[in-house]
Amino acid sequence: MGGIVNQPLVISVDVMGGDHGPSVVTPGVARAASLLGAQARFLLHGDEAQVTAEVARHPALAGRCEVRHAGRVIAMDEKPAQALRRGKGSSMWNAVESVKAGEAAAVVSAGNTGALMAVSKLLLRMSADLDRPPLVVGWPSGRGVTTFLDVGANVDCDAERLVEFAILGEAYHRAAHGVARPTVGLLNVGSEDMKGHGEVREAHRILREGRFDLNYHGFVEGDDLSHGVVDVVVTDGFTGNVALKTAEGAARFIKDELRAALTSGLLAKSGAMLARGALQRLGQRLNPPPAAPLLGLNGIVVKCHGGASEQDFAQALRVAADLAQSDFAAEIERNMGRLPAAMAESHPAADGASS
Amino acid sequence: MGGIVNQPLVISVDVMGGDHGPSVVTPGVARAASLLGAQARFLLHGDEAQVTAEVARHPALAGRCEVRHAGRVIAMDEKPAQALRRGKGSSMWNAVESVKAGEAAAVVSAGNTGALMAVSKLLLRMSADLDRPPLVVGWPSGRGVTTFLDVGANVDCDAERLVEFAILGEAYHRAAHGVARPTVGLLNVGSEDMKGHGEVREAHRILREGRFDLNYHGFVEGDDLSHGVVDVVVTDGFTGNVALKTAEGAARFIKDELRAALTSGLLAKSGAMLARGALQRLGQRLNPPPAAPLLGLNGIVVKCHGGASEQDFAQALRVAADLAQSDFAAEIERNMGRLPAAMAESHPAADGASS
Repeated sequence: MGGIVNQPLVISVDVMGGDHGPSVVTPGVARAASLLGAQARFLLHGDEAQVTAEVARHPALAGRCEVRHAGRVIAMDEKPAQALRRGKGSSMWNAVESVKAGEAAAVVSAGNTGALMAVSKLLLRMSADLDRPPLVVGWPSGRGVTTFLDVGANVDCDAERLVEFAILGEAYHRAAHGVARPTVGLLNVGSEDMKGHGEVREAHRILREGRFDLNYHGFVEGDDLSHGVVDVVVTDGFTGNVALKTAEGAARFIKDELRAALTSGLLAKSGAMLARGALQRLGQRLNPPPAAPLLGLNGIVVKCHGGASEQDFAQALRVAADLAQSDFAAEIERNMGRLPAAMAESHPAADGASS
Repeated sequence: MGGIVNQPLVISVDVMGGDHGPSVVTPGVARAASLLGAQARFLLHGDEAQVTAEVARHPALAGRCEVRHAGRVIAMDEKPAQALRRGKGSSMWNAVESVKAGEAAAVVSAGNTGALMAVSKLLLRMSADLDRPPLVVGWPSGRGVTTFLDVGANVDCDAERLVEFAILGEAYHRAAHGVARPTVGLLNVGSEDMKGHGEVREAHRILREGRFDLNYHGFVEGDDLSHGVVDVVVTDGFTGNVALKTAEGAARFIKDELRAALTSGLLAKSGAMLARGALQRLGQRLNPPPAAPLLGLNGIVVKCHGGASEQDFAQALRVAADLAQSDFAAEIERNMGRLPAAMAESHPAADGASS
């Protein structure tokens, strides 16, 4: 967003990842090439013959990319441990390695999420004191998109981890959405200070003290995600995963019931036919954004969803470019540096007795 | 459900509770009087003049109810502590006291939830080892209604509490929905044994051992609530509250967006007009049931939502009657009696190391 323009920007791409591989990823890169302007260049990792043939079809990619052969592909259903053991030399592994080697500013993959997390962690290492990168999702809301994390990677979270998620999510939201001072909320069962369990109350106390460069709003509740009350909502990976899957299940149920209602008779069917365009636009509006970063790594890694379209993949590359051209990493480092002092100071009251 | 027929059944009613008071509650009782048959009788607590005038309008209530004067009403926004201090002699207090005194088999109120919980706890006492009754909600699903608890009363839950919720929820679901062997699931972030945090894994281990008379299915995930994979879903009050509010927020967002989409142009508007009947039926299908019990008390207490219609209140009385005529309390007592042995046996492995 707020970026260094006209400087070369290299993005590394796992061309073999995702449900469709090169036939969708390559045109996605071509779209992004037009979208991002001449300074963007691409390192394309995958089967050389296949990728080269795809690249030749897109004039937008001429002179803008380099194909790097990778003889292996990590399958979408491979276990992370297996990907670590046998993934070396795969398109995903090599794509991440380009970031580690400093050849690329960011990597994008639509491949296996668990494998991407494991390979990125191994090659780039965590910058934050976390087991693994929190999973981030863009939650469609009345005000646009709410950044929500962790939706499943770190099940047990103490107050310190929740504060780390706040730091990571805030920097990401600014870089990806161009919001100067994103507001941050902590997910709880009420808005008063004494609500919730010990971890969430301690994190609240630490964030409220204002030691971090964060626009901290306070506690938010589950329905605030869709209201868009704050830009970033922070929770532990257990609660976040349950909330995400519960809402997805409810949304699917409503869609199925709506479909059943609109095919329940001649009147309803005719009505649905007339309203079809509006209903399709609604469906798109409710879809979450196709890409999200793996945060807390020493390097920018963006995960695009497996069933991504060309547009989706181009959108993921745009997120990678926005992150790479922002002060994202430096902002995170600055705030993370304040964490030890904030934790040490808070600890005398950490038993919750004073809240 | 499976009940003692032709035996008198007395239900105590807080006629002043809810947003509308006697003008909606009394016709609701009249509906229930027809619905439940001649053995059902009602103790109506409230302002004598007002309630007597309402009763006179409903021939179905002639000879079926007794009005008991209460000079006070607990307001919908009164704090529970305040309700405890000043609630004595109110319609809600007296209605609960009728159950304590053995004059009624159950009580129904559409009044202030926090106050009803506090007054019931004080007068009836908890049977289970819980701080307060878990909050139960009926979750609309593809297979009917999923019983979901705790949606907010007990924020910190160890394994023992989760097992107690399973016992309470199962007995309630059978009594209220007539399902002989309701299936019970424990909410988690995956279905494998090693998933989740320590409390949920320990509860899983205890329930799996089969010491209880429960049809335990295993772990379920957030989207299984709407799929209706099991009849009863158990979680702690923190996760349950967040899941419920998140799904409510998402559903409201979808409804708002649907309304916007269907008024976005002439075609869409005409379509919506034709499909109106189907869309209205859909809206009703997505509403949760209007009543839920406060579980874990020595007595049957049913809470009807504050904005209840006559039909809703009649439905709440039907739930109370079903619970009162079932083996609900005895079933809970039997399973609760097995809890100490199950906990003692499980405890050596309670640190989670063996899972």
